[in-house]
Amino acid sequence: MKVEIITIGDEILIGQIIDTNSQWMAVELNKIGFYVYQITSIQDDESHILKAFKGAENRVDVVLVTGGLGPTKDDITKHTFAKYFKDELILNTAVVDHIKSMFLKRNIRFSELNRLQGLVPSKCKVLHNDLGTAPGMLFEENDTVFVSMPGVPYEMKGLMTNTVLPYLKNKFKLPFILHKTVVTFGVGESDLAEKLEDWEDKLPETIRLAYLPSPGMVKLRLSGESFDKKNLENLIVGEIEKLKEILGDLIIGFDNGNNIIQSVAQLLIDQDKTVSVAESCTGGSLAAMLTEKEGASQFFIGGIIAYREEIKIIELKVRKSSIQKNTIVSNQVAEEMAVGIRNKMQSDYGIATTGNAGPTTDKTDKSVGVVCIAIATPSGVYSEEFSFGKPREMVIHRSCNKAIELLRKEIIKNY
Amino acid sequence: MKVEIITIGDEILIGQIIDTNSQWMAVELNKIGFYVYQITSIQDDESHILKAFKGAENRVDVVLVTGGLGPTKDDITKHTFAKYFKDELILNTAVVDHIKSMFLKRNIRFSELNRLQGLVPSKCKVLHNDLGTAPGMLFEENDTVFVSMPGVPYEMKGLMTNTVLPYLKNKFKLPFILHKTVVTFGVGESDLAEKLEDWEDKLPETIRLAYLPSPGMVKLRLSGESFDKKNLENLIVGEIEKLKEILGDLIIGFDNGNNIIQSVAQLLIDQDKTVSVAESCTGGSLAAMLTEKEGASQFFIGGIIAYREEIKIIELKVRKSSIQKNTIVSNQVAEEMAVGIRNKMQSDYGIATTGNAGPTTDKTDKSVGVVCIAIATPSGVYSEEFSFGKPREMVIHRSCNKAIELLRKEIIKNY
Repeated sequence: MKVEIITIGDEILIGQIIDTNSQWMAVELNKIGFYVYQITSIQDDESHILKAFKGAENRVDVVLVTGGLGPTKDDITKHTFAKYFKDELILNTAVVDHIKSMFLKRNIRFSELNRLQGLVPSKCKVLHNDLGTAPGMLFEENDTVFVSMPGVPYEMKGLMTNTVLPYLKNKFKLPFILHKTVVTFGVGESDLAEKLEDWEDKLPETIRLAYLPSPGMVKLRLSGESFDKKNLENLIVGEIEKLKEILGDLIIGFDNGNNIIQSVAQLLIDQDKTVSVAESCTGGSLAAMLTEKEGASQFFIGGIIAYREEIKIIELKVRKSSIQKNTIVSNQVAEEMAVGIRNKMQSDYGIATTGNAGPTTDKTDKSVGVVCIAIATPSGVYSEEFSFGKPREMVIHRSCNKAIELLRKEIIKNY
Repeated sequence: MKVEIITIGDEILIGQIIDTNSQWMAVELNKIGFYVYQITSIQDDESHILKAFKGAENRVDVVLVTGGLGPTKDDITKHTFAKYFKDELILNTAVVDHIKSMFLKRNIRFSELNRLQGLVPSKCKVLHNDLGTAPGMLFEENDTVFVSMPGVPYEMKGLMTNTVLPYLKNKFKLPFILHKTVVTFGVGESDLAEKLEDWEDKLPETIRLAYLPSPGMVKLRLSGESFDKKNLENLIVGEIEKLKEILGDLIIGFDNGNNIIQSVAQLLIDQDKTVSVAESCTGGSLAAMLTEKEGASQFFIGGIIAYREEIKIIELKVRKSSIQKNTIVSNQVAEEMAVGIRNKMQSDYGIATTGNAGPTTDKTDKSVGVVCIAIATPSGVYSEEFSFGKPREMVIHRSCNKAIELLRKEIIKNY
């Protein structure tokens, strides 16, 4: 069973917003056994919408449409639905009553424009939108299901969760879809593919493999669908066991998200250890990574962003002579920063970064992209110099990833 | 001139990643006068890709394709291009040499799979990818330009910036596209539309208006395109002046989010002023935002991430009694943090954040999402309490945006 998601709205096409709705919908649809075949973003333009509806109807079983349901003149989705299905708009008083009571509660004036939001195509089933003024609409025409929802993320999510997903589950006999992701660290995509060639050739046809590279990391995704849930799970788990044998330590985690952060956070929490950071070229990104998920206060004490040289000297006790002898981008300076922050924050581990994020170099003979990372531990200090290329954002991102990887190694070593 | 963006890769369709490439591309294309007509996300599947190419060729002048160029078996984009244009793959030795020299620098082994990345359709112009192993490819066939780029964001951005955008600018005579956004606060979408009805009815036909609601806020976007840049600018600026008269204080700002960093950076550099940060709940994200673009070292001195209470007291000189009397999430504590970091770093401005990012609250009576932000300036200190809702990521993001907005106000006031 295939779904197409159509998002209507110029704000996506001119890059004013990022379409996050489709990602959320895809995940939820996969959970109930639907596969998203295509995502199409189009303009608030009648002829364009009509063409997209026709195309989607030929491609898939279910078309989920978001956007263009507001009370203002630029919102034309429901008029276009009426035209597409040769239908007319009629007033639904339940919708008007809902808007009135919502506005009364929030002490907002009800206006004539709001009454117009009660106009819906006569052929649709109206889906109650608990969280907003524009109702959802469901059409079963020409052997295809069309659903129209607001583009406001929390309203769309409410409608999907409470009404659309249960309806789809009930209407269609759906298979079980499973994705499992294995996260590898420290090996390139092509090297990994060579290591896995024999295994990949023998993969059962029902399992699809994808390589997802990102800086420092390659994720392997195994996907399959089946009406026999248990069998599919066993099949995929069996292949992951084989992967573990082939790849060993190169695997750092499973499934999604910033696994390396979660893995390091768990190690620190389990061992009741703490960490602090001294950042130069990473400018706060390393701390932001460590604190982005809940529970960070259990292991993260704090940090210093020592962007200027004098802050390294005053706050982190880096010796002037070390800077003069080695330049600011050096293992020696990184080590002194790491030890300095560990002492200052009284943490078990201290991480430091110093480097040239670029695009220009500053007071050092090291080229753009060179970054020194140090980890101070209860038993000493370790540092290493890296060349992370360019551009600036990538140097920062790779430095953070590498720093977390080094920290992980040190924690395991000190365990 | 119309563009379609096609993203190839199951990872978007199963919701494993959010498509951020298209948003970036749309913004950059708008800047040179191209309008993105449609964004289509499809599977790594030959027949699906062929159909999408055909559809796009009928719709637009330029088709920008990302994804599916890796060295592994799941990547089929270039084979499908060869099939679509009835072409064959030939080995491009310049690409192979580039990969070899890249790998040599980073000390990575060159494998046979990497050599295969040098295979490209004979009809394409090869676009050098400075930042990765898969080259870009450009086809001029059937009166349409097709460009194929890797899906890795920084590689795509490099190719777009260095090669694709200059090529498009040179090949086509392009109009000037302008979007201006007016941000209103505290008035609902339908009320706003009523207030603007007369003005909206009289808008010149060349200017398109869109309402973009989000919690608490409605953005009004005015868009137009013209070969006469000056005239278009005057037209839109004139309409914004009328909006100012009608809406008055309801307008809180102009244009988009990311511009605010650039605007603050420029203000600081122009006035030769510096800033430092003291972050609690934002955990480094605020410093990361301020330092993410080049030139940050001109105005950013450093910061302290005072995640734990004792770091606020020791490093930022926050008084224990202030914490006891007001709790850690309070304007008083935020103000002492801001003054503390300004003094410590000897910067002109000091920004501080303290709050509950969630999902749970810690040692305070304030609910999740409450954040206090303070700005210490050469003439005093200002603070304000906000309620940023949830989830955690959103609270952090909104806190950083708001802190930058407040800093901007203070800089302008102190000018």
